[in-house]
Amino acid sequence: MKISIIGVGLIGGSLAISLKENGFAHHIIGVDARQDNLDKAIRRRLIDEDLPLEEAIQKSDIIVLATPVDAMLDLLPKVLDLVDKQVIMDVGSTKVRLLDLVVKHPKRGRFVATHPMAGTEHSGPEAAIPHLFDNKCTVFCDLELSDQDAIEKVTALYQSIPMRVVELESHSHDIHSAYVSHISHISSFALALTVLAKEKDEDRIFELASGGFSSTVRLAKSSPDMWIPIFRQNRDNVLDVLDEHINQLARFRSLLIKQDYDTFYRLIEESNKIKKILS
Amino acid sequence: MKISIIGVGLIGGSLAISLKENGFAHHIIGVDARQDNLDKAIRRRLIDEDLPLEEAIQKSDIIVLATPVDAMLDLLPKVLDLVDKQVIMDVGSTKVRLLDLVVKHPKRGRFVATHPMAGTEHSGPEAAIPHLFDNKCTVFCDLELSDQDAIEKVTALYQSIPMRVVELESHSHDIHSAYVSHISHISSFALALTVLAKEKDEDRIFELASGGFSSTVRLAKSSPDMWIPIFRQNRDNVLDVLDEHINQLARFRSLLIKQDYDTFYRLIEESNKIKKILS
Repeated sequence: MKISIIGVGLIGGSLAISLKENGFAHHIIGVDARQDNLDKAIRRRLIDEDLPLEEAIQKSDIIVLATPVDAMLDLLPKVLDLVDKQVIMDVGSTKVRLLDLVVKHPKRGRFVATHPMAGTEHSGPEAAIPHLFDNKCTVFCDLELSDQDAIEKVTALYQSIPMRVVELESHSHDIHSAYVSHISHISSFALALTVLAKEKDEDRIFELASGGFSSTVRLAKSSPDMWIPIFRQNRDNVLDVLDEHINQLARFRSLLIKQDYDTFYRLIEESNKIKKILS
Repeated sequence: MKISIIGVGLIGGSLAISLKENGFAHHIIGVDARQDNLDKAIRRRLIDEDLPLEEAIQKSDIIVLATPVDAMLDLLPKVLDLVDKQVIMDVGSTKVRLLDLVVKHPKRGRFVATHPMAGTEHSGPEAAIPHLFDNKCTVFCDLELSDQDAIEKVTALYQSIPMRVVELESHSHDIHSAYVSHISHISSFALALTVLAKEKDEDRIFELASGGFSSTVRLAKSSPDMWIPIFRQNRDNVLDVLDEHINQLARFRSLLIKQDYDTFYRLIEESNKIKKILS
């Protein structure tokens, strides 16, 4: 299988490693707005060659869109215009805006909307790693608008890694993503700012930072180039979850002020139920 | 060295493993309010024997207080009453309340207040693990009130692991801990509640949970028996940090409402500076 990856960053690059390693892809073409990303991807042997978009599409069986989600809004209609029998898939974190945009495109069937639920706080081709996606879950959205052969090819791609496939309607996907991914990032960004503001006065605060702190603020290292477009496209859902999260924190605040430690204890017990989800 | 560990949970048990493994302790005595904890600790060979408090103190060179911080308020004055040349150290997450309580005790000099900055979200003797403290930082508080030989013994204990020692005044310690540890836990508890509330309507939400989510809510598995006493004792500092954190989140909320993504982008870049602290 010949595969073009448009956007050779963390996700595109890691996918390239997996698909080359397991033999699903025998040739990988990189396309990127930044030549330095392509140069790095060639040096790291993430891709076999880099080509301009049109040539890459002509030479490929599958075209993977792995850019930030704002760039996809320009890219997907353009790629749909150019494909014939090729299959296009995206790996973006938001779906509704993108799918609304191409719903009436005559080639809509060639496109399969997917979201592999994996990532790290790092970005760029230098951040690409093996096994990022192994045994994780990937979401397929609005499959009734995709051609059967396209769905089969993309399913085979993910099963080769292997990843589990879950189907969701695109609005439902965007709400779920706000809960299990986007709010975690906002919480980390805010926590980092809270602590960094304090650090201005106190040099030594970070000598004390332990594993728990690192774990909760790790995502605050994430790139704004990736996340601002996600927050922009998923604004309404993110606002809903953010409101709920602020309400939960305000409830804790009020319990501390009232010194109602019995209720606080009960709420911590309630939150402990997250154990059943996390390994 | 003979060491008594009062409270054979995650911290006490992990310390027992390290000190036995590196030869600093040749005999470890466990004391615990719960016999089942002692039985588990014996079965796991975390401790060599269990004894009542008075006998344990008589037979020990160093007594380590590793209970939840509320129990320490009863325990420390009692242990100070009983010691002669032995050294007492605590490993608690809050310091001001405890140190104020014993400031005038005639044996105050035998006590060294410490806080090893390490832990996990698990608790009890079954959660004790090797290497939990290796190369981490431990804080010593208000050393001017401790006897020189006591400081030397406790320093030797930590250096045997090895851990780095940092000195802080107790009020400063409690503020710093609120920033680099306590707020992370509150944030995780709140995030878990936010998502669990949503899960009541949506069964499949957690199929999508990925590494980023697990990382930010991991601490929500932490025990209320440990954390409520910490929040109670460090209430004023935790409230200050919680207010700041809620303000940061409210700022993000307001930027999303105004769709001011440029400022949001700049704030994410600012929060990225946490990179210099986290490895």
